[in-house]
Amino acid sequence: MSTIIQLESLKSELETELYDHVLPFWEKYSPDYENGGYFNCLDRDGKIYDSTKHIWLQARQVWMFSKLYGTVHANQKWFDIAKLGADFLIDHAKTDNHRVYFATNKEGQGKQIQRKIFSECFYVMALNEFGSISGQQRYITEAKQLLTHIWAWTKDLSKVGQLSYPGNTPSQSLAIPMILLNVFEEVGGRNWMEYESEIMECIGEIKEHVDHKQQLVYETVTPSGEKINSIEGRLLNPGHAIEAGWFLLRWAQKLGRTDLQELAFQMIDWSYTLGWDTREKGLFYFLDADGYSPTPLEWDMKLWWPHTEAMYAWMLRYEVSGQQADLERFQEVKEFAFTHFSDPAYGEWFGYLNRAGETTHRFKGGPYKGCFHVPRALYLCIQSLEKIGQKLV
Amino acid sequence: MSTIIQLESLKSELETELYDHVLPFWEKYSPDYENGGYFNCLDRDGKIYDSTKHIWLQARQVWMFSKLYGTVHANQKWFDIAKLGADFLIDHAKTDNHRVYFATNKEGQGKQIQRKIFSECFYVMALNEFGSISGQQRYITEAKQLLTHIWAWTKDLSKVGQLSYPGNTPSQSLAIPMILLNVFEEVGGRNWMEYESEIMECIGEIKEHVDHKQQLVYETVTPSGEKINSIEGRLLNPGHAIEAGWFLLRWAQKLGRTDLQELAFQMIDWSYTLGWDTREKGLFYFLDADGYSPTPLEWDMKLWWPHTEAMYAWMLRYEVSGQQADLERFQEVKEFAFTHFSDPAYGEWFGYLNRAGETTHRFKGGPYKGCFHVPRALYLCIQSLEKIGQKLV
Repeated sequence: MSTIIQLESLKSELETELYDHVLPFWEKYSPDYENGGYFNCLDRDGKIYDSTKHIWLQARQVWMFSKLYGTVHANQKWFDIAKLGADFLIDHAKTDNHRVYFATNKEGQGKQIQRKIFSECFYVMALNEFGSISGQQRYITEAKQLLTHIWAWTKDLSKVGQLSYPGNTPSQSLAIPMILLNVFEEVGGRNWMEYESEIMECIGEIKEHVDHKQQLVYETVTPSGEKINSIEGRLLNPGHAIEAGWFLLRWAQKLGRTDLQELAFQMIDWSYTLGWDTREKGLFYFLDADGYSPTPLEWDMKLWWPHTEAMYAWMLRYEVSGQQADLERFQEVKEFAFTHFSDPAYGEWFGYLNRAGETTHRFKGGPYKGCFHVPRALYLCIQSLEKIGQKLV
Repeated sequence: MSTIIQLESLKSELETELYDHVLPFWEKYSPDYENGGYFNCLDRDGKIYDSTKHIWLQARQVWMFSKLYGTVHANQKWFDIAKLGADFLIDHAKTDNHRVYFATNKEGQGKQIQRKIFSECFYVMALNEFGSISGQQRYITEAKQLLTHIWAWTKDLSKVGQLSYPGNTPSQSLAIPMILLNVFEEVGGRNWMEYESEIMECIGEIKEHVDHKQQLVYETVTPSGEKINSIEGRLLNPGHAIEAGWFLLRWAQKLGRTDLQELAFQMIDWSYTLGWDTREKGLFYFLDADGYSPTPLEWDMKLWWPHTEAMYAWMLRYEVSGQQADLERFQEVKEFAFTHFSDPAYGEWFGYLNRAGETTHRFKGGPYKGCFHVPRALYLCIQSLEKIGQKLV
């Protein structure tokens, strides 16, 4: 009984954070009712400090508000915000070659295209989800068509401009199968069998990044899953590996595959344990598998999103395992995150701390931080707590 | 007389650092006698942690050893090291389209090309200087031919792959005229009149980055020199502006232009004063002109190179002005640099500190740090001290 009370109290705390402190920030400051879409470069107090519209964040915000509208509460304000972004995406985000800009100006004119597929992935997730809540098939059709292009590009990244030179060691990146696994979960929904072979391929590729002997999850390995002895090959991104772990764990549940469940448990556990800074608490951004200094200058910083991903990863593990130890890990990372990132004064979370845990950047939204990781993790954890609660009653 | 003794002692300290602690590290650990060129990813103790050859650093090391051989001492070891790199560059660094790779593997096969002109600029400086010490015209011819291409590319950066989209605010970057001013000083030498119109154009462009009212040097402005109100437009890089200041100050001396001397003095003074962290000492990496949080995650870190550039900038100002205040600023930054970056245990300097001044990366050489800023600044400061000494006697 005390566990139930504890979990109820936790759920209530997460709900307050999500609905009273996080979402209002974006509802109030981000919508651009003049040009459509959202301002995503927002200072601590919501002030716009750059009017560029970063498409990763436009799309993720569409997804977030659509998801909340569709699964939590049919709040017209959420629908309207989602539509503002979805229509901006349809009207402005795509090039003539099915590519999606990384950024546009506030009017929607293209500013930058990355040699990556992630803008496209988030675009697909956004339109698919908005299509679902609006009941308008054209958004879903647009999403599914682009997903076909994305899948083809993953087989030949030169199609998105990633050139290969003779001196490059052939490699594959964790980010691609990982994000696609999430995209297929979203777009596939109940009809995921339509994408079964693609899903199995993504899972197979993710497995190649896991080194069971060393208990490590590599970002980059050879096409046959071997370690590459270079800066890139040894680079570890614990938050990313933890996120990949929960993406996989959701599929393990859906597929009823205990082998994948075990693998996902390990990815979360190993990456969290390795990434946790025992001196100052919090998760490091990058590590080197062999203990060299990681070359990214920001390697020892504590970013908001590895912590939100770890929160949900441990909560999902707890939902699946029922083990108290998983809940304790959730509490550990949630405590760190709420203490260090959450900003009760203005809402939303800060994004960046130095190793010692001091805030280094005061903005709430920037080129890579928007209305996504914080509300998604809170939303998913609340969902988990509901399911756990139902089991316990 | 006491000033003479003080400066003699300082010169001796810098010579010890350069010849006993910095150069031996590169002489011992970097040469790749098997494949040519240098290993530039070297751990604290000189161990190779990645065999990639980053061409900026290959070229800069050729330049450095050539310069020392040509102007300090005809040390055969230095000549041989310079030749090892110069021939690697000639044999491997260029593509069929006159582009220069950003990186090759250890055998010299291309790995990456940037959409920037800097690999090419350092390649030119390297071959020009090695041509000068070897007396072999072919290196100089190669350098001058590539410089012609570079100059043409600066007029149309799409030629190196920098695409422009309708949403981009037209802009110009400080880095291009600044580095070219240095390249023209090197390649022009006594016959710089050959490049007079290009030099004047670069100086004119640099002037457009200086805001006298706000006492700021912007990295990016519109083509007519106006501030751009965006993340990029407000970004300040104090170390870079200080370096641009001393590049300009050398031209001011050469051209006998007191107006440019005054401008260079201001660029150094304003950028140093703004960039200096009064709480923790040292120079910030990035700032925002309007006081927003700079978006680069590493903005508050202390990197070795802004400090080496500031050392020489203040020394050169002192050489020109004779003002004790300039020498005091030199002492301030030199004291910080020697205390925090220099590694007496293994030689060379660490490259990266957090805001509080703690070493965050233990390697001595990496993708952007090689045998260049530390020895160049020490070498130039020693040269300055010799000139000052001659005036004082």
